[in-house]
Amino acid sequence: MKSLLVVAHGSRRAQSNDEVRQLVDKMSGMPHEFTEIKAAFLELAEPLIPGGIRELIANGAREVVVLPYFLSAGRHVVEDIPADVKVVQDEKPDIKITIASYLGASDEVMDILFKQANG
Amino acid sequence: MKSLLVVAHGSRRAQSNDEVRQLVDKMSGMPHEFTEIKAAFLELAEPLIPGGIRELIANGAREVVVLPYFLSAGRHVVEDIPADVKVVQDEKPDIKITIASYLGASDEVMDILFKQANG
Repeated sequence: MKSLLVVAHGSRRAQSNDEVRQLVDKMSGMPHEFTEIKAAFLELAEPLIPGGIRELIANGAREVVVLPYFLSAGRHVVEDIPADVKVVQDEKPDIKITIASYLGASDEVMDILFKQANG
Repeated sequence: MKSLLVVAHGSRRAQSNDEVRQLVDKMSGMPHEFTEIKAAFLELAEPLIPGGIRELIANGAREVVVLPYFLSAGRHVVEDIPADVKVVQDEKPDIKITIASYLGASDEVMDILFKQANG
């Protein structure tokens, strides 16, 4: 029972938050090994990260992977997301919660950039 | 003489801007079809987009592809980047300046997310 929480920054612009939710819906429809995949936000949109993790646990997850949908290792990735995760980890010491590498850490991002650049 | 400008938002945190510059340096070292690849920023870091495009043109580009290193089609992608591009396009009507799809528009981002999630 391992579930995935894709975490974006969150925007005042509802359409940007919906774009993240749609991405996560598309991921849910692809073949994968997770019990459940959900979107959550660092701020400005719901659910926030702790609420998202708690919901996955309430739905049966014994393990949660938190995946930062961020391009750079800024304060949000380095400090804020781990702090939010710690809140729930302290509440639920029997659940394994890990934080995966943020999107921008992948060298494959460059391959996509070249493809986009070449239309 | 086609050159590529990878455009990020820009951050008050110098390390985040350097992360973008390093990505672009790595891209420059990969096999590609561009005369030159540069980083530029919408705000908070140098060069800004118009300056970046002007520098590529000064270095010989007759065509410039502007690639938004952004995850969602927010105001920055939809309005601000095109407005900055228009400033230089109006100055240099003989140069072909195009804006490529932003990073988040690629379905392959999902493949990377699954890979990151699976460690």
